[in-house]
Amino acid sequence: MSPATFTDAIQHQLQLTQYGLYPPELYDPIRYIMSLSGKRMRPLLTLMAAYLFTDDWRKAIQPALGVEVFHNFSLMHDDIMDQAPLRRGQPTVHEKWNQNTAILSGDVMLVNAYDLLLAVDADKLKPVMSRFSRTAAEVCEGQQLDMNFETRWDVTEDEYIQMIRLKTSVLLGYSLELGGLIAGADAETTRHLYEAGVNIGIGFQLKDDLLDVYGDPAKFGKQVGGDILANKKTFLLIEALQQAKGTVRDELTNWLHKPTTDKAQKVQAVTAIYEQLGIRQITESRISEYFSRGFANFDQITADPARKSFLIQFVRQLAERES
Amino acid sequence: MSPATFTDAIQHQLQLTQYGLYPPELYDPIRYIMSLSGKRMRPLLTLMAAYLFTDDWRKAIQPALGVEVFHNFSLMHDDIMDQAPLRRGQPTVHEKWNQNTAILSGDVMLVNAYDLLLAVDADKLKPVMSRFSRTAAEVCEGQQLDMNFETRWDVTEDEYIQMIRLKTSVLLGYSLELGGLIAGADAETTRHLYEAGVNIGIGFQLKDDLLDVYGDPAKFGKQVGGDILANKKTFLLIEALQQAKGTVRDELTNWLHKPTTDKAQKVQAVTAIYEQLGIRQITESRISEYFSRGFANFDQITADPARKSFLIQFVRQLAERES
Repeated sequence: MSPATFTDAIQHQLQLTQYGLYPPELYDPIRYIMSLSGKRMRPLLTLMAAYLFTDDWRKAIQPALGVEVFHNFSLMHDDIMDQAPLRRGQPTVHEKWNQNTAILSGDVMLVNAYDLLLAVDADKLKPVMSRFSRTAAEVCEGQQLDMNFETRWDVTEDEYIQMIRLKTSVLLGYSLELGGLIAGADAETTRHLYEAGVNIGIGFQLKDDLLDVYGDPAKFGKQVGGDILANKKTFLLIEALQQAKGTVRDELTNWLHKPTTDKAQKVQAVTAIYEQLGIRQITESRISEYFSRGFANFDQITADPARKSFLIQFVRQLAERES
Repeated sequence: MSPATFTDAIQHQLQLTQYGLYPPELYDPIRYIMSLSGKRMRPLLTLMAAYLFTDDWRKAIQPALGVEVFHNFSLMHDDIMDQAPLRRGQPTVHEKWNQNTAILSGDVMLVNAYDLLLAVDADKLKPVMSRFSRTAAEVCEGQQLDMNFETRWDVTEDEYIQMIRLKTSVLLGYSLELGGLIAGADAETTRHLYEAGVNIGIGFQLKDDLLDVYGDPAKFGKQVGGDILANKKTFLLIEALQQAKGTVRDELTNWLHKPTTDKAQKVQAVTAIYEQLGIRQITESRISEYFSRGFANFDQITADPARKSFLIQFVRQLAERES
């Protein structure tokens, strides 16, 4: 078994899936956003989690794609709310078409996501759907909190972690849990899978925040310092705002509020403040902490050792990425 | 059994239902739109359809509310797309809060709708969810067609009927079908229920179009002629555009394109054109036709005669309304 087997299965299912045909204005944007390449991390996690407990992991393919469609629905609507012009280097749906199309195509994607999940065995339908609804609502809650935080300067670390848990991590948790549910794993096991996904998801998001400042420009896909220039409330900025006192705090506040004349200078100055406050070390230690918790959750799971290390290896690679 | 029994049951369930608590920015708009009084026609149809086949109609209450929540989700998002300032005389969600809130609260309402449907017996889950997803996608297709028609002057009667079938009628069909599914009716019966709802739903929408022009101002809740002033592509206008030739067509086109200086004059003039072309009679005959088809669908259903006439009586009252 190689990771390519799972990737190919997802790719094949992506090509097979009909989102709908008429009117094209409604369905073309779905095909467009689904074609923008992504890592397909969520459906891969579902398939690998199913493979822990069954050879018949292929029955998880269609539901796994449901999670990917849901993820892309949330991107389509978030991009409207964030007025984002680009997604994976291409125009966002509301830019390429218009806002109404992005609202309505997103709506029908959410319906499509549920519909793909219906492919699970009848006796698994209730837990699969019920846990999915809970997760989907939480993703919306996380997006609302993220928007609320934009106008606040007193967000605490706990609040930030709660926001990213909801906005991004619970769906990684559900991706793994779904594989377990489909493969007939017991309740305790699916809970461990879920917790593993949530913890590792928080680690991923914190690492994203860290790489934006400390990433290697040669490896990092985006402009290093982009979050600093956008005054984005990342873990690093929130931590710095909580820690900084006296003149350091005044200096940081000053950089946040004055118009940016020299971009490189602002990135350099804010990074220097982070250094002074030890923000890099704090962030790195939180990342390790969440990854450790996630791998400890995997340790609690009883499954074929080769298959388990296959999944853990895949997650470890994702965790160690530099971009 | 009186209609009030069903209405009370829905009202009680509306009070019981928790849509979510935190963050309040996400869930307050749901409570708001659900509190704006509506006829609750869809859940009533579900309960009455269930009651045709079972005394245990109360198990349809929670899923019936799912349909009502879905309906209100579609109103919340449609109001953004149509830039509507008012809904049932109150500010729309995007006006009272903002557009992002209306997008995101609507999203979580769609999730809530699915979640409420999960209350059906496990053996009914698959058909209930699968038919719901099909219906929900069609409602989105109908809204997209409606938006497409705004910039077209050559919409045909068939296209218009197809649009209202998708945008509004299939959900009435599903409301009845859902009651039958929950009560264990056979496939042929649930199909008749669905078709009855669709046909009567088309009749309702055509009657709405008619009442806007020919309603009794004393009974009709809205301003008579509102659709004419807005150049709304109703069945009447589409029919008139298809029928009008020569100078009548020029006159109609003129009223549609020139700025409105005297509202009453425009309403009177366009109504006179409708009279000249016999549009009122054509519309009335289509309404009768769809209502007759709907009642013929009911005739095909075998159920307790008293309960059946109870449902038919309710639908007939809705059909005969003057506002």
